[in-house]
Amino acid sequence: MFEQRNYCGELTLNDVGTLVHLAGWVDTKRDLGGIIFIEMRDVTGIVQIVFDASKNSSAYEKADTVKNEYCIYVTGEVAKRSIETVNPGLKTGMIEVIGQDITILSESEVTPFPIDTHTNLNEEVRLKYRYLDLRRADMQEAIIVRHRVMQTIRRYLTDNRFIEVETPILNKSTPEGARDFLVPSRINRGAFYALPQSPQLFKQILMISGFDRYFQIAKCFRDEDLRNDRQPEFTQVDVEMSFINPSIIMNIIEGLLKEIVKDVLAKEIATPFPVLTYDEVMQRYGKDAPDTRFELELNDVSDIFTNSSFNVFKAALGNGGIIKAIVINDEGKISRAMIDEYINYVRTFKAMGLPSVRYTGSAFETGIAKFLSDSEKQKLVDRLKLNSNSLIIFSCDKPKIVNDALGNLRIRIAQQLNLIDENKLNFLWVVDFPLLEYDAEEGRYYAMHHPFTAPKPQCEPMLDTITPQTTEAIKAQAYDVVLNGVEIGGGSIRINRMPLQKKMFSILGISEEEAKIKFSFLLDALKYGAPPHGGIALGLDRILMLLLKRNSIRDVIAFPKTQKGQCLMSEAPSPVSAQQLKELSIKVVEL
Amino acid sequence: MFEQRNYCGELTLNDVGTLVHLAGWVDTKRDLGGIIFIEMRDVTGIVQIVFDASKNSSAYEKADTVKNEYCIYVTGEVAKRSIETVNPGLKTGMIEVIGQDITILSESEVTPFPIDTHTNLNEEVRLKYRYLDLRRADMQEAIIVRHRVMQTIRRYLTDNRFIEVETPILNKSTPEGARDFLVPSRINRGAFYALPQSPQLFKQILMISGFDRYFQIAKCFRDEDLRNDRQPEFTQVDVEMSFINPSIIMNIIEGLLKEIVKDVLAKEIATPFPVLTYDEVMQRYGKDAPDTRFELELNDVSDIFTNSSFNVFKAALGNGGIIKAIVINDEGKISRAMIDEYINYVRTFKAMGLPSVRYTGSAFETGIAKFLSDSEKQKLVDRLKLNSNSLIIFSCDKPKIVNDALGNLRIRIAQQLNLIDENKLNFLWVVDFPLLEYDAEEGRYYAMHHPFTAPKPQCEPMLDTITPQTTEAIKAQAYDVVLNGVEIGGGSIRINRMPLQKKMFSILGISEEEAKIKFSFLLDALKYGAPPHGGIALGLDRILMLLLKRNSIRDVIAFPKTQKGQCLMSEAPSPVSAQQLKELSIKVVEL
Repeated sequence: MFEQRNYCGELTLNDVGTLVHLAGWVDTKRDLGGIIFIEMRDVTGIVQIVFDASKNSSAYEKADTVKNEYCIYVTGEVAKRSIETVNPGLKTGMIEVIGQDITILSESEVTPFPIDTHTNLNEEVRLKYRYLDLRRADMQEAIIVRHRVMQTIRRYLTDNRFIEVETPILNKSTPEGARDFLVPSRINRGAFYALPQSPQLFKQILMISGFDRYFQIAKCFRDEDLRNDRQPEFTQVDVEMSFINPSIIMNIIEGLLKEIVKDVLAKEIATPFPVLTYDEVMQRYGKDAPDTRFELELNDVSDIFTNSSFNVFKAALGNGGIIKAIVINDEGKISRAMIDEYINYVRTFKAMGLPSVRYTGSAFETGIAKFLSDSEKQKLVDRLKLNSNSLIIFSCDKPKIVNDALGNLRIRIAQQLNLIDENKLNFLWVVDFPLLEYDAEEGRYYAMHHPFTAPKPQCEPMLDTITPQTTEAIKAQAYDVVLNGVEIGGGSIRINRMPLQKKMFSILGISEEEAKIKFSFLLDALKYGAPPHGGIALGLDRILMLLLKRNSIRDVIAFPKTQKGQCLMSEAPSPVSAQQLKELSIKVVEL
Repeated sequence: MFEQRNYCGELTLNDVGTLVHLAGWVDTKRDLGGIIFIEMRDVTGIVQIVFDASKNSSAYEKADTVKNEYCIYVTGEVAKRSIETVNPGLKTGMIEVIGQDITILSESEVTPFPIDTHTNLNEEVRLKYRYLDLRRADMQEAIIVRHRVMQTIRRYLTDNRFIEVETPILNKSTPEGARDFLVPSRINRGAFYALPQSPQLFKQILMISGFDRYFQIAKCFRDEDLRNDRQPEFTQVDVEMSFINPSIIMNIIEGLLKEIVKDVLAKEIATPFPVLTYDEVMQRYGKDAPDTRFELELNDVSDIFTNSSFNVFKAALGNGGIIKAIVINDEGKISRAMIDEYINYVRTFKAMGLPSVRYTGSAFETGIAKFLSDSEKQKLVDRLKLNSNSLIIFSCDKPKIVNDALGNLRIRIAQQLNLIDENKLNFLWVVDFPLLEYDAEEGRYYAMHHPFTAPKPQCEPMLDTITPQTTEAIKAQAYDVVLNGVEIGGGSIRINRMPLQKKMFSILGISEEEAKIKFSFLLDALKYGAPPHGGIALGLDRILMLLLKRNSIRDVIAFPKTQKGQCLMSEAPSPVSAQQLKELSIKVVEL
């Protein structure tokens, strides 16, 4: 058995008259009295098998004993369906297979949910019975597309001279930002490995080793509290190159994303992608990963209100704040109640209130209309290009709060008013990120990307005189790629000179001793002709989620964890034996 | 800079007259007074750059400042070398580049070892300075070939309808055989993940999910005490298929290995591979992974000596032992001292002594000659096909000891006498392994492969009446692939029926409760139409080591660990902060 094999979903009119051997599952079975129709499913799709008692009674009788999800092997002849029995809902709907023999390979109990369910399944049940959930068409598609995309990525990068190198999973712990997952070493008592948050140091080491184009579809690990689009382990398309500048790598990544989209959606996307600076996207969208599928841009109107009689504006500007506005051509659709709900929403971002006003097409009404001078009104009309019934919503506060509030609100409103074309794929680059951010509470600097990111050459001298006020002006050679408002990748040119790397560590408050413990091999390696290099990492899970329009990255991962970091199928993590802990010289601390 | 790039190792006579832009490292530099020759190296190879003071004094002066391993960018024109200066040792030796400009991208200190070293480097130094070690031609070759082989594997399997699926690294601990590496869960206090020893259960789950051909180039982890060819993390080409029998999968793997060998060595290997049963290889080679590149086969001569007057033989046979012999046509080369050394060697395998005798071509002399009857002599001549000056070495003891002793001795002798053709690639299959082995000391059965391996159908009834004596006769649907005496892969048809899986657990002494805790999801999954399936896992590191003729898998892994499980470059594993342990609710046990 099995020497001969045909695939259910691949049978066409060309196969009519041929004998086929199919292996798969009973998707559905209908008994019309004397005739049994089985929709048989394998990894390629579904085909209808017919068992006619009057023509082959022994096959009919065997077919009569099968139930849904039985695993079966069928021999039969492909036949053309008559016009009236063609099933246009099925790829193989023009034909059917006249069953000559059927073998039950294994039986099935009734499944906890029907395999043909597309919606409304409880996710916990899906994850517990993942082996059945993965039989569903949605999941089969996601896993097969993921496979195809991975092959495309490797082929594209290989064709572009990249070399795939496996970097270790058992690493040294150098917690930066997120927490490390730790692995106790049995042989080296009291010492721990850490699972990699990314192969960052190893890929830089590879550049110093002379492999000038590296990639890896790498598993990365972060012990964070999980949000909807986070997993403790996730997959990163990790790329590093020597002898480059940002535009070379951006060009290569655009080509890669073009191939991926072609593969998943059979669509051509336009390249090059728009390139926007960090300052510009913060100004216009309030976010460093803007969704440009719709307008509702943020407009800084601070200058219009320098002499405002509206106390809230006055106070905000007096405190070093800004005023921004978004204009919604809503034709009057947005009600007072909705505005109240928006005010409630932006509290999440620490914004106190959302002053608003309606422009009727000729006049300003309601809200803060009474505080607006004629000159302010005229300036608003000009600046905001007002010309029809529109609502203008303001936020005034510290820039970060204003940007957070309006940057998120514009997305919420766009969703609410159906302004987003879900078929658009708006890729763009954000460049010129600040190298560092100053944390006023802790009184220290943090690397915006990571400590190995190089400043723009013209900004490098500013590092010697850095102050909290000058921080934002020091730009990095960093670039993020964004799709529909989601950051799908980020990278930078790295520092390849030891004095500069040491200076960065010093600004970041990483002492020489600490740097030596954590990164001595990188600092050492920089002594031996380290090439100029840089790279990027793309989030494969997120890219697939966006292109396949799934709600969660869990829907594009075969065996994901829950938000509590659990695998509901295998019940990991779990208690282990006392013997295992003893061998590792660790114990669980009593509460 | 860098918008234009040519590669050192790719320049040929076709490029003569063109302007090229090269980025790489100074491999060597010779100053001939007024002319500097730099051998410049990049990932593709080496090319000679010439700076002539009389032609371009500014470039010459800059070139004069570089030293070995400086990272440089060179612009120059490709020129044909005169006949007398052609370097046949260099791929690009027909040409050279007349340097017009040179930029130092970064300087280098003197490296701890010369990059052009091929031998005699201390491995600890190599591993500490892995970024420099990886610049050496040997390591560049290994990493690049590894990349190529990985692409070939994925392309071949994809072309054969396999789908690559990533299985989790954070798994449940189900220690079987080797120890698990554990990862404490912070969110689930007191619970642990385990790193996978292999994706075994997940790949079976994928078959039950209906993906009928799966593969993954998977990282696997075993917390073992390390031998020369073991690493705590290693790479496995993991394959699983539904609706198959052993010969289908063996055929596919032969095709895969054919592609790999073609890729690495540009050589065609013959398929199908020889298929030998476990019983046969144990009989003839004393090992389940025989090296068939040379003869020196083991011959069971127990029956010849049933009435032996030699007490050692008599005692061995009386104790249920066997007598085996190997014949070495050494033309008298093996001395008494060498035999003494062999006797010493086989003590490792618990063998007490190695009776021997020399056949001169007409008579038996020395050793045990005086104990041989005429009839025994004649039978030996016939059985062992003696016809020239040969040494016959016997071992008599329990079968396991005899096989271990002679099975290993034949390899040692073959190496000593140079009987092994190092250019041969002897692939073969070993099939029909026993399903179980009985451990007399512990009084229990172990799975020879793993607990999910299916018995041969005709052996299945024997499980109901298994005894220590009948164990070896119960054969598994298991198959190993062997190259030059090294097992490079192993697999089996899996159990796809719950009653049989439960029976196996019961024979293995895994209680229902334990099975439920460890494998309940697999047992559950078997209820829902589990297809017949099986698979194999190939050791990628070992395959590359053998094909590239390296002494250790460390030489085909970019960043390996030492035998103490340490990364000498990054100094993993290492102590971690008290805060990290506190968050994980664990502590290191005081001694």
